[in-house]
Amino acid sequence: MPIDLDEVLKALSHPLRREMLEWLKEPEKHFVEQDHPFEIGVCAGKFDERCGLSQSTVSAHLATLQRAGLVTSRKVGQWNFFKRDERNIAEFLRRIGEEL
Amino acid sequence: MPIDLDEVLKALSHPLRREMLEWLKEPEKHFVEQDHPFEIGVCAGKFDERCGLSQSTVSAHLATLQRAGLVTSRKVGQWNFFKRDERNIAEFLRRIGEEL
Repeated sequence: MPIDLDEVLKALSHPLRREMLEWLKEPEKHFVEQDHPFEIGVCAGKFDERCGLSQSTVSAHLATLQRAGLVTSRKVGQWNFFKRDERNIAEFLRRIGEEL
Repeated sequence: MPIDLDEVLKALSHPLRREMLEWLKEPEKHFVEQDHPFEIGVCAGKFDERCGLSQSTVSAHLATLQRAGLVTSRKVGQWNFFKRDERNIAEFLRRIGEEL
């Protein structure tokens, strides 16, 4: 599905959401170790610890990033693991650079 | 003043505001002639005509773009003329490319 520029720009307009995307570039630097390898993604709970915010706030931010196509998630057992969607991020940068 | 990424991203998240910025790239293509040359900017009233929206709606969109630093305005008599702020637009693209 092609990205929706409005959705992506709104998702990126919150500094914490941009920070989350940055942490996902190098998970091993920004999160404490988790049972599953970071290759499958970073567990939602790790973001709660990192941000010091409630689970529901963090969930809402991750959901916004996911709806915009900036991250993908994968469920393993009862946990959700998040990764950057590098293809969509690159597509966003290409399109906004072209449009502006 | 350096741009505020949050403000710029919010300003850009509305499709009409991105369109306004695009029209300002080539005013002579997108607006009917005005008394003053387009070099000083495009008169707010020209946007009202082009959008078919009320003056107050259009004003609010232009003000959002201006607060974000994406356009500059210049008052001539009772009229405000708007231009793209190319320096800030380039700065935004550089920073968002770097951050993401």
